[in-house]
Amino acid sequence: MWEKIAYVALVKVHQQVLEVRTSGRSFTNISREVQQVVAQSGVSTGLCTAFVQHTSASLVIQENADPAVLRDLARWMSDLAPESRHWEHDSEGPDDMPAHARSALTRSSEGIPVARGRLVLGTWQGLYLWEHRATGHRRRVVVHVSGVS
Amino acid sequence: MWEKIAYVALVKVHQQVLEVRTSGRSFTNISREVQQVVAQSGVSTGLCTAFVQHTSASLVIQENADPAVLRDLARWMSDLAPESRHWEHDSEGPDDMPAHARSALTRSSEGIPVARGRLVLGTWQGLYLWEHRATGHRRRVVVHVSGVS
Amino acid sequence: MWEKIAYVALVKVHQQVLEVRTSGRSFTNISREVQQVVAQSGVSTGLCTAFVQHTSASLVIQENADPAVLRDLARWMSDLAPESRHWEHDSEGPDDMPAHARSALTRSSEGIPVARGRLVLGTWQGLYLWEHRATGHRRRVVVHVSGVS
Repeated sequence: MWEKIAYVALVKVHQQVLEVRTSGRSFTNISREVQQVVAQSGVSTGLCTAFVQHTSASLVIQENADPAVLRDLARWMSDLAPESRHWEHDSEGPDDMPAHARSALTRSSEGIPVARGRLVLGTWQGLYLWEHRATGHRRRVVVHVSGVS
Repeated sequence: MWEKIAYVALVKVHQQVLEVRTSGRSFTNISREVQQVVAQSGVSTGLCTAFVQHTSASLVIQENADPAVLRDLARWMSDLAPESRHWEHDSEGPDDMPAHARSALTRSSEGIPVARGRLVLGTWQGLYLWEHRATGHRRRVVVHVSGVS
Repeated sequence: MWEKIAYVALVKVHQQVLEVRTSGRSFTNISREVQQVVAQSGVSTGLCTAFVQHTSASLVIQENADPAVLRDLARWMSDLAPESRHWEHDSEGPDDMPAHARSALTRSSEGIPVARGRLVLGTWQGLYLWEHRATGHRRRVVVHVSGVS
């Protein structure tokens, strides 16, 4: 089964910076805020790119139904890049280098197509900003939308 | 060495949903199907974005030559996010939470430039849909192509 | 706080192949070279996509300040996908399969928005080509820029 949409037109380009206040080691579902940017862009068919301007917080698309999924992910990631490891870079605290490592394993940017003015996220998908530092921060996510109306 | 292509033109935008039937814990090479979408788009120079609408299957670009590479990847990933770990989220079976974890480590979206009407995949690169669940599923990959003809 | 930019216009599309000579198991900061492509594109507001045409080298955005961060990342990744593991695919040397695994965990493509003619990288972010093989290689990164002037 194929669904097709095709256009030849002038391009619409829209960009906004989304500021997100996080709490320490947490997931913030930013799907709604990013969808609002898409709505404001007026783009009907196109591509939305989210980009996080940090290396100790990252993006990940995960299940938005059972919160236990996110708790499991957080615990498992803590074991994969543990604070208890000896890290040479420790001047910014024991949580900083694990935060960089966890960011390297997840996403700095995510590209999500837009159809009929909406992000094509699956039913159970949420776009999350994953704060890897132990304390909350003010994080910047650049949202870029381009396409046709 | 630099190769350059540059255009100012009307944009072409093309989108299709690709349905992929997978078998359990497997790699499906979808390079050809995605290239077909690029061909149908009529885009000569542009960007193709593949996006998987699930959080227990993911995308990865890997070697398409020796199948042992994929077998090694699968075994190693099984150790990295094992079923034997205690996961809080276990209501959908012991293979579900490892599938989410393995998806978090690989890709939900991949952006591949298009040149002369073709994905610029390297000689040994294939784009794979990685099914992380123990049984086969019908998976949806949204393919978005934009650029100029 | 929101910053907004919006355009309806003819699209500019620009593509270049960047050749990068690496040394073995190293990070090469390619931010400046990619920014030069953005400058040459004449795109003011748009999207830049970097794509690596290999599966034993990858892209990652990491801190560009303290070099100890990159050393830590390299050591930790060596433990995550170690050469000492038994890999079935060993015909290209003991460093090849770990290189594929490390590439699978990091990025084949990265999408970075462009604003006012510049990549919107955060202050401490650098875009790195991560060579995972034990010896240096000549690597190809395709840089695609699209947007409006």
